[in-house]
Amino acid sequence: MHAPTPTSPALPGIAAEILARVRERKPRVHCITNVVAQSLTANVLLAAGAVPSMTVAPDEIAHFVSSADALVVNLGTLDRERRQSIEIGIDTANAARHPWVLDPVFVDRSPSRRAFAARLVDKKPSVLRLNSLEFASLSGEEPNEQALAAYAREHGAIVALTGATDIIGGGGRMVKIANGDVLMTRVAGMGCAGTALTGAFLAVEPDAWLASAAGLLAFAIAGECAAELARGPGSFAVAIVDALAKLDREMLDARARLA
Amino acid sequence: MHAPTPTSPALPGIAAEILARVRERKPRVHCITNVVAQSLTANVLLAAGAVPSMTVAPDEIAHFVSSADALVVNLGTLDRERRQSIEIGIDTANAARHPWVLDPVFVDRSPSRRAFAARLVDKKPSVLRLNSLEFASLSGEEPNEQALAAYAREHGAIVALTGATDIIGGGGRMVKIANGDVLMTRVAGMGCAGTALTGAFLAVEPDAWLASAAGLLAFAIAGECAAELARGPGSFAVAIVDALAKLDREMLDARARLA
Amino acid sequence: MHAPTPTSPALPGIAAEILARVRERKPRVHCITNVVAQSLTANVLLAAGAVPSMTVAPDEIAHFVSSADALVVNLGTLDRERRQSIEIGIDTANAARHPWVLDPVFVDRSPSRRAFAARLVDKKPSVLRLNSLEFASLSGEEPNEQALAAYAREHGAIVALTGATDIIGGGGRMVKIANGDVLMTRVAGMGCAGTALTGAFLAVEPDAWLASAAGLLAFAIAGECAAELARGPGSFAVAIVDALAKLDREMLDARARLA
Repeated sequence: MHAPTPTSPALPGIAAEILARVRERKPRVHCITNVVAQSLTANVLLAAGAVPSMTVAPDEIAHFVSSADALVVNLGTLDRERRQSIEIGIDTANAARHPWVLDPVFVDRSPSRRAFAARLVDKKPSVLRLNSLEFASLSGEEPNEQALAAYAREHGAIVALTGATDIIGGGGRMVKIANGDVLMTRVAGMGCAGTALTGAFLAVEPDAWLASAAGLLAFAIAGECAAELARGPGSFAVAIVDALAKLDREMLDARARLA
Repeated sequence: MHAPTPTSPALPGIAAEILARVRERKPRVHCITNVVAQSLTANVLLAAGAVPSMTVAPDEIAHFVSSADALVVNLGTLDRERRQSIEIGIDTANAARHPWVLDPVFVDRSPSRRAFAARLVDKKPSVLRLNSLEFASLSGEEPNEQALAAYAREHGAIVALTGATDIIGGGGRMVKIANGDVLMTRVAGMGCAGTALTGAFLAVEPDAWLASAAGLLAFAIAGECAAELARGPGSFAVAIVDALAKLDREMLDARARLA
Repeated sequence: MHAPTPTSPALPGIAAEILARVRERKPRVHCITNVVAQSLTANVLLAAGAVPSMTVAPDEIAHFVSSADALVVNLGTLDRERRQSIEIGIDTANAARHPWVLDPVFVDRSPSRRAFAARLVDKKPSVLRLNSLEFASLSGEEPNEQALAAYAREHGAIVALTGATDIIGGGGRMVKIANGDVLMTRVAGMGCAGTALTGAFLAVEPDAWLASAAGLLAFAIAGECAAELARGPGSFAVAIVDALAKLDREMLDARARLA
């Protein structure tokens, strides 16, 4: 049933190939995301070649999602309107068989948000992208490879656990990405933007594990390139957008550190 | 009835003169705009010398609009509160005879938004700023010079159609601006920020055709200057704000490409 | 009852010491702030070493504030949801004895906002940070040292009046900070971000006068460092975030201009 795991050496080339498809097809990616991340997210998507839309109004969301190629759902700055739109948006995506990614920001800080996130996971996201605290809060387990594989199996989703090393697992496959830079944790909305990039990759690549591994690899390597030019977190946030627009196979091949 | 069309060579000088007025008078420009564009829009207005305010709360909007010199209405990320505030804001601007610009973002993606936009056009904006897809959706016509002139005449507004070449028409006058850079299409909210700059020019120049042609010329030339310093869309977004703050008559004269 | 005013020469060293504490303890700072300032505010807090959260949803706000170390309340882009959350947030902070700062943006432009702000001042913020127009609107007095001291005494808060020179008074102490750069007034949300930095300092320093004087000194000096690298307001907004991440005792000592 499962596609074979590409050997680690193949992933950079696949990432370059999917990125080329994003640039050529310019997929529409609709994002219901938090206000802090909206601008960086839109700029990351544009830099990669995708076309972002960001409305959260419940009466428009179905039109935007059904005319988009992928949906990104991020729970930061969750409000009444966002809750309502998220449910409509996901149901629309599922009905149209569009891929969608869930980023359950800060479920560890708010019980009502955790309960809402658990309900969304039941709607079967293509990919669940979260950090260790969020994974522990949602699964009730320590964030390790076994727990990740079990949670992915139970919910039929790819799980992408990001941190110093990103782990992407699900469907019997798993890869660890050791790329990235600590400055990525010093910019507001950076993780959310990475989730959105994964959404752009999902829009043009039906294999959700491959799309998310490739998307997070591309994002982490863009971050490394940016860190070399940055004087701090302010210029880093600018440089990562520049780096994404320029990212090519050579940079991906030369820098990928996978396990 | 109509002011004569300035010959093309005159426009850069007029733009420099209006920009000098913005810097000296520091007009208040109230913007009801989308959350993705709010920060860039406010920074573009500040860089040009204007004083932005951005509240969208219905119970405050009349106070902000009546104490402002111009109103900018942008339909991106339209929600219930924005719909309500937009109607109050426009009615307040019209009652006070303040100029206002309408930017009907994404009317081609949502029928409820298109209907709302059509209703706002009936309230007679000073300037309607849109791209080709939005013009086609709103007017039902191919986006060309004839259709633009007809739509402007029918609705008594200046119509500014932006793209690789900007066309500003209305009141029997028309100019084409071939300035700008493709990076302007790679930054979220860039078009919205250009609309807001037009609002700042309208705040100090009663001739709406002149204000919008001059504002869009200034914006496009700032974009060209920024592109020369940028390493990609991230640094471009920063550089265009710097360029606007420095823009002067020499840069406008040397670069303007008009028809 | 009052801690003695540190002699002016001592403040830079104290600011460096509090900043070191922020970097070490990584306090959580919850911000209910305006949409224009949210991204810059979050990035300024992250650059200083704090952990920002920004939700404004009424049903989550108590959880976020009670698990945070300080609360920042900013009245820009005030809407129904923000009004409701602000009251819950402040009551939660007061009950938990967490410090909170109030930034009554644009009270001079909207009577309903002024009335709301006056009600919040009665809830006893640790620090009230405002500009001259806002102080005059709220207190009904000319913005000078006497009026500031009287208002601080009457309301039991530290009052930080910012402008070309910042004046921080309350509890019988007062200091004037002549640092900063005019570019700080040309970037949207810059004052709001400075208020948030004060919140991070309050989270680790119980003496509210010291925390706010030190926080505003650090912010103004970061602004000076940034101005030396900037080509205009766009690159300045980037550079001040970089400068904050690097700020150290030497820079504070060398540049502080106090009275």
